[in-house]
Amino acid sequence: MSGMSTEALLDRLRADLGKDAVRTDPDITGSYARDMMPLAPSGQPLAVVLPEDVTGVRATVRACAEAKVPIVPRGAGSGLSGAANAIDGCVVLVLTKLNEIVEVDPGNRLAVVQPGVVNLDLRDAVEKHGLFYPPDPSSYDWCTIGGNLSTNAGGLCCVKYGVTTDSVLGLEVVLADGSLLRTGRRTVKGVAGYDLARLFVGSEGTLGVITQATLALKPLPQAPGTLVAGFPSTAAAGSAVARVVREGLVPSLMEIMDATSIKAAEAYLKTDIGAGSGCEALLLCQSDSGGEVARRELAALEQICQDCGADMTYATDDLAEGNMLLQARRVVLTALELYGTWLTDDVCVPRTRIADLISGCRRISDEVGLRIAVVGHAGDGNMHPTIVYDPASEDEFARARRAFDEILEVGLALGGTVTGEHGVGKIKREWLEREIGPVGMRVHRQIKAALDPDNIFNPGSMFSM
Amino acid sequence: MSGMSTEALLDRLRADLGKDAVRTDPDITGSYARDMMPLAPSGQPLAVVLPEDVTGVRATVRACAEAKVPIVPRGAGSGLSGAANAIDGCVVLVLTKLNEIVEVDPGNRLAVVQPGVVNLDLRDAVEKHGLFYPPDPSSYDWCTIGGNLSTNAGGLCCVKYGVTTDSVLGLEVVLADGSLLRTGRRTVKGVAGYDLARLFVGSEGTLGVITQATLALKPLPQAPGTLVAGFPSTAAAGSAVARVVREGLVPSLMEIMDATSIKAAEAYLKTDIGAGSGCEALLLCQSDSGGEVARRELAALEQICQDCGADMTYATDDLAEGNMLLQARRVVLTALELYGTWLTDDVCVPRTRIADLISGCRRISDEVGLRIAVVGHAGDGNMHPTIVYDPASEDEFARARRAFDEILEVGLALGGTVTGEHGVGKIKREWLEREIGPVGMRVHRQIKAALDPDNIFNPGSMFSM
Repeated sequence: MSGMSTEALLDRLRADLGKDAVRTDPDITGSYARDMMPLAPSGQPLAVVLPEDVTGVRATVRACAEAKVPIVPRGAGSGLSGAANAIDGCVVLVLTKLNEIVEVDPGNRLAVVQPGVVNLDLRDAVEKHGLFYPPDPSSYDWCTIGGNLSTNAGGLCCVKYGVTTDSVLGLEVVLADGSLLRTGRRTVKGVAGYDLARLFVGSEGTLGVITQATLALKPLPQAPGTLVAGFPSTAAAGSAVARVVREGLVPSLMEIMDATSIKAAEAYLKTDIGAGSGCEALLLCQSDSGGEVARRELAALEQICQDCGADMTYATDDLAEGNMLLQARRVVLTALELYGTWLTDDVCVPRTRIADLISGCRRISDEVGLRIAVVGHAGDGNMHPTIVYDPASEDEFARARRAFDEILEVGLALGGTVTGEHGVGKIKREWLEREIGPVGMRVHRQIKAALDPDNIFNPGSMFSM
Repeated sequence: MSGMSTEALLDRLRADLGKDAVRTDPDITGSYARDMMPLAPSGQPLAVVLPEDVTGVRATVRACAEAKVPIVPRGAGSGLSGAANAIDGCVVLVLTKLNEIVEVDPGNRLAVVQPGVVNLDLRDAVEKHGLFYPPDPSSYDWCTIGGNLSTNAGGLCCVKYGVTTDSVLGLEVVLADGSLLRTGRRTVKGVAGYDLARLFVGSEGTLGVITQATLALKPLPQAPGTLVAGFPSTAAAGSAVARVVREGLVPSLMEIMDATSIKAAEAYLKTDIGAGSGCEALLLCQSDSGGEVARRELAALEQICQDCGADMTYATDDLAEGNMLLQARRVVLTALELYGTWLTDDVCVPRTRIADLISGCRRISDEVGLRIAVVGHAGDGNMHPTIVYDPASEDEFARARRAFDEILEVGLALGGTVTGEHGVGKIKREWLEREIGPVGMRVHRQIKAALDPDNIFNPGSMFSM
């Protein structure tokens, strides 16, 4: 803390943004202290600031920079890495009130949005124009675009449509001195200077505060057809995924569930999802190519599944029935609450190594004596092994934490990454260092120091200076 | 220049890399002093260094860093911005001997390559596995992947398959102190840390030397069907492009030629390309979706062209005939040599503004009294107005330069960017500043200073420190 006292900072923020935008009641600040990752540490904010426009964001950043008070930017708080968790004495900068869809331009297939726009609201707004914003993290009905950008969020769509960064054309970012950077473009292509927009995407609020984004949109796909296939072993399901990749098929969705996930979903839905008793893995695939093409794609996928030993396959082009089949995948995390609290991990492995990752998780589950359900985006190798534990038991919590780390170890050993889409945040800092090594860390620190010399943006998230 | 004399530097390079890898004969150094952009300044290198492996690259960087001698990295020299042009007293670091395709992994649809691999060689190598490396700059039969990465090269494929950065998973980069950064991943997704790979892509050799790349591949598309449509006005052609975008069609190629380009191609090919005498603009479209789908896509494109006033359309699913139709587009630059030397510009505008850009070019052509042919990647708004001048006339050269700049002015005014795919290099530095403004420039300089504090990598390319 420097020249400005805490009280002086709060007074200045109240003067600049209005009293209602600056909250210090512990009930309020406490409610903005955490995201959805139970393992990550969090602190007690000095204040929560809710600006209504970019001027308010700039004023907040300027005041905090002067007072050398750290800023933790956040959206809805749906994150799963603790990146949005408060640290002691920080200002939590909440972007949810900057929630305007500034523009939808169907002629150029783009949208300009503020960071507080909820993912689903953007999807709905562009759908009216026959357009599609692909990134669909599972919290899409409440997470915000700003959080999606800051974590480079993925989802079920990625196998065909990529992750958030693939939809970013340009950004407006408030920098550490309060100045406003406009980077990127409205055009499809552009190479004028460094790709700063993609440097800010996924930087977890450590380099600046995103206040506007220009996003590329896709034509709205056709209603998807759906295929479900049950396998007698994870190895068989894994080999089906590898063959789908090798044969050049690109489904619009390809999810995998292991036996533990299947059992949890069946218990929760109180139904046999048709997998049969010997079913060790389920693949759920969709094609949104429409009509005859979708039917052909699903038939090819079905054939591969059968060739790889699936003992049950079922395909439908009925949308409602397809959604019902996908229910099993969607309810897994909720279903696991039947058994305890869950802790979901996030590793991405080469698509040829999915079965190895699942068998690694099974071994870890046996070792730590906790249930681990593996669900994941099989089409891009991004797996979410989910550990179930009793939060009242310190011992179980410690074992859950051990399992969480061992899964990352297995992921790295398979040539994967310690985070496919949830981010590093405050929970995987040591693992980032393990994955990228000392040279990579040095470059990260050089860039952070160059753009945020006083380390006011989300210090200690992703890495420490 | 510092501690080490020029002779001492050359001796050390010869000792480290072998005598044959260090060339100082003026004939040789002169032949590596320029890329393909005639307007850009170039200097006289101290030496040309041709390492054979990453160890040689690191030794060169370490020696030059110690001697504070600037390094200009380059590949084949096909660039169109002067980014690879030498500066006086520099070491030109030629990466063409690092030309190994290290790995093709069909199971994970990726390739690992050295920077000196020629784009076409990679395309051929992966095609054997039923795979496709999309980026296809027009110099694809001689440009190298390293140059493609450094300029974030595009091509005809971009409308459907994106630019070079969209195919990059990971990079190995030699940094300014000679250390080796491995960044990115082999997996489809990954958010462990900042997106450094995409920071280096398009940085024109100013931040480091790329020595290896892990590239994502696509399934090999079907042989394309082709549609050609002639329009009585550029406005009509422009409105067809806008409608294609708005209606959600994604051709695998959509090129535009203006009347000047058409006439040049006809003169060169000594044939009437069927456009008719009143034809002011030609659209060339392809669909690589295969079979019935491709025929449907081409029919939809044809209908849009007709609705927008095309007075000639012709579609074929014969590959050879399609290639023949595309000939007209491919020969334009060569054809323009019938009239003089050409200077090709590169702007990208919103896809709704293509006709405005072309009419702007026509106005500029009248003003400067030089022929300007506009060809371009209509599907992404990336236009290459090409100015024809007599290099023996200083006055014409000056007018060509004026036209070059005025085209950029028009592009910016239409909401576009001053470079869609060729880069800033040594020819558009002032324009970069115009486009991105002082805050953007400051961030560029901060990042450059953080990663290359002594400014040894390609100083004065893209911007000056």
